[in-house]
Amino acid sequence: MTGRTMRPIRETIPIGQALALVLEAATPITRTEPVPLDQAHGRVLAESVLAAADVPPFERGAMDGFAVRADDTSGATREVARTLRCVGSIFTGMIPSIAVARGECVAIATGAPMPDGADAVVMVEDTDRIGDEVRVFAPVHPRQNVGRQGADLAAGDTVLQAGSVITPSRLGALAAAGIAEPLVFARPAVAILSTGDEIVEPGRPLGPGQIYDVNGHTLSAIVRMHGGVPIPLPRAPDAMEALMQAVAEAAESADLIVFSGGSSVGERDLILDVMRAAGEVIFHGISVKPGKPTALARIHSRPALGMPGNPTSCLSNGYLLLAPMLRRMARLPEHRPHVLRLRLARRILSTTGRHQFYTVQVADGSAVPVFKSSGDITSMSQADGYIEIPAQTASVEAGEMVEVVLF
Amino acid sequence: MTGRTMRPIRETIPIGQALALVLEAATPITRTEPVPLDQAHGRVLAESVLAAADVPPFERGAMDGFAVRADDTSGATREVARTLRCVGSIFTGMIPSIAVARGECVAIATGAPMPDGADAVVMVEDTDRIGDEVRVFAPVHPRQNVGRQGADLAAGDTVLQAGSVITPSRLGALAAAGIAEPLVFARPAVAILSTGDEIVEPGRPLGPGQIYDVNGHTLSAIVRMHGGVPIPLPRAPDAMEALMQAVAEAAESADLIVFSGGSSVGERDLILDVMRAAGEVIFHGISVKPGKPTALARIHSRPALGMPGNPTSCLSNGYLLLAPMLRRMARLPEHRPHVLRLRLARRILSTTGRHQFYTVQVADGSAVPVFKSSGDITSMSQADGYIEIPAQTASVEAGEMVEVVLF
Repeated sequence: MTGRTMRPIRETIPIGQALALVLEAATPITRTEPVPLDQAHGRVLAESVLAAADVPPFERGAMDGFAVRADDTSGATREVARTLRCVGSIFTGMIPSIAVARGECVAIATGAPMPDGADAVVMVEDTDRIGDEVRVFAPVHPRQNVGRQGADLAAGDTVLQAGSVITPSRLGALAAAGIAEPLVFARPAVAILSTGDEIVEPGRPLGPGQIYDVNGHTLSAIVRMHGGVPIPLPRAPDAMEALMQAVAEAAESADLIVFSGGSSVGERDLILDVMRAAGEVIFHGISVKPGKPTALARIHSRPALGMPGNPTSCLSNGYLLLAPMLRRMARLPEHRPHVLRLRLARRILSTTGRHQFYTVQVADGSAVPVFKSSGDITSMSQADGYIEIPAQTASVEAGEMVEVVLF
Repeated sequence: MTGRTMRPIRETIPIGQALALVLEAATPITRTEPVPLDQAHGRVLAESVLAAADVPPFERGAMDGFAVRADDTSGATREVARTLRCVGSIFTGMIPSIAVARGECVAIATGAPMPDGADAVVMVEDTDRIGDEVRVFAPVHPRQNVGRQGADLAAGDTVLQAGSVITPSRLGALAAAGIAEPLVFARPAVAILSTGDEIVEPGRPLGPGQIYDVNGHTLSAIVRMHGGVPIPLPRAPDAMEALMQAVAEAAESADLIVFSGGSSVGERDLILDVMRAAGEVIFHGISVKPGKPTALARIHSRPALGMPGNPTSCLSNGYLLLAPMLRRMARLPEHRPHVLRLRLARRILSTTGRHQFYTVQVADGSAVPVFKSSGDITSMSQADGYIEIPAQTASVEAGEMVEVVLF
């Protein structure tokens, strides 16, 4: 026997309080970096972007058709057409060297600069052309189908505010403003340390008493989904000195440290000792099921989450705590998960006094519980999402409506 | 003037029909590739994964506590404890060399192999230990707090079905089954060709009559979001021969070709000519606003989408047509966008006979129209999502409830 003894978790805090403490410990990132436009999707703008020039930069046709003097089309109908003489064509990318005089018109493509003299565009659908003769079947008023210079944005106008999340449409706005490398906030770097001497990387053969690392991989996926960069650390042996060293190194390069395993009460559960020795434990133990043995600390002035070793427990607190924490650090808005309202297919008994996270499968339009135990693969492989059962609820009956948060 | 003439789009098809044709042209990908587990999130499994061994691979403790013979704990209460002698400890990753005899127990960590002789685990919270003496305050029944070998999965059981989308929880199941490189379907390669001689890459200076390429970038972002790999092609000059050549090359390496610009009716709009010369046009012209000048063709046996040149038009058909098409090719389930039901802040007049895609901003809990014109940046930069207005609706009044599909 070692000198350490098992330490049962006797005091737990409610999940809501745990979430509040986790969010309090999350410092929004201040590092910035330029990214090429093609990698900017989903990133957060670190500075407001101003229009460098008027958009459009010149008066342009807003329709394919004919640039005209609006006056020349007045009263035109399909029965009584106005006939104009076409004196040239202007394509996009061209500088018009041609002007439109009374009784004349110029073929113009959408986006091409307007020729001098013209003040409107008749769309091609309202015309008929034979040789140089263009018959116009509908009148246009001055400025009709013309994009005025600066109509969209004037030079100096704000295109996007700092803090905007770059969606495809905003990425389009950046491109239109000529921005090739927007300045964005860096993604929080998250050091992930799976502990446990029995843990083996998938792909290698299992020795006796060994199991594959699951949590390192699920945590990495959650980190990526919510705006972080996972930094998987080499597995450290279950020994105080090795872990202290690994943690000190992680704190230098990471914005957040996440341990999996080692926050339970086993004699070999060293993470809590590491947290105490290297920093300050903020909480240990949450009245949530699964996921009770979860801890938050501050180590070398970095927040550190100690996640449970059991895969389902680790996954559930990944969703309930790590994801919101990371989004705050990454300056992303609160996650809006997809929620389905479905009937529960089978009764669930819940542990009162503990908020419960329960994996379910969506099948035949109802929510089928798949949670077996917190160490289970099938709870994870068959799950499409989860339901939450509040601490004071003892059971949810078959047929009750539940809100399924989809993974 | 060139010999070509403008070709107005006189016949359009409804958006629903366009979508059906686009989906019909989308062939689900058959190429497969192994990916490292850390890059497997969001990918689609190409083969079912079976458990190579029992999970758990051995009988193990499911709680931190003491492995006991259940018999020895019968009748134990906090007042009348049973006292057992602790004869050792088993940590995870260890092979127990110790056996539990009557009146004995062994300290055991969650996940550690059960020692011979023991058939249950008393959790540490129900015990008190002084030296080698362990007082047990609650009885356990045989198998209690023990994970039976194969209880989760028996060797040969299916862990995940082919076609499953890999979520973090399923990624965890793959890891647990020891899969380091799951075989997944390849992502569809999408060649993107922005046409137009006036188009300049962001970051370069604009010459007279030039504008920045927007569509290449928004299309790339949409392709990435929906399971594809964008392959931006070098911009080809607006000349038939160059475009024919670019398209032939694209068809060799891409699963889908997407053009932006050039499917309108301008004289220089060559894409339709290219589509006709190199393959077969399936449709040209959709009764949707914006986005009317959109075409679908089959070129060198690949589907090809001709998107409008106007940025908002291109974006809207990116969402309405390209995204669903791509998801079918990538074997991803239908997209479940986030939809908010909000009141419309301002009246919108719609063009009857055309299904309308209208960008809106979410502000003060209502949907504020931001669509100005289909060439507009502000329609894109300020938009949080869009509403759709059916072809037969002439207007939507301020205060009406609308469904905002978030970007």
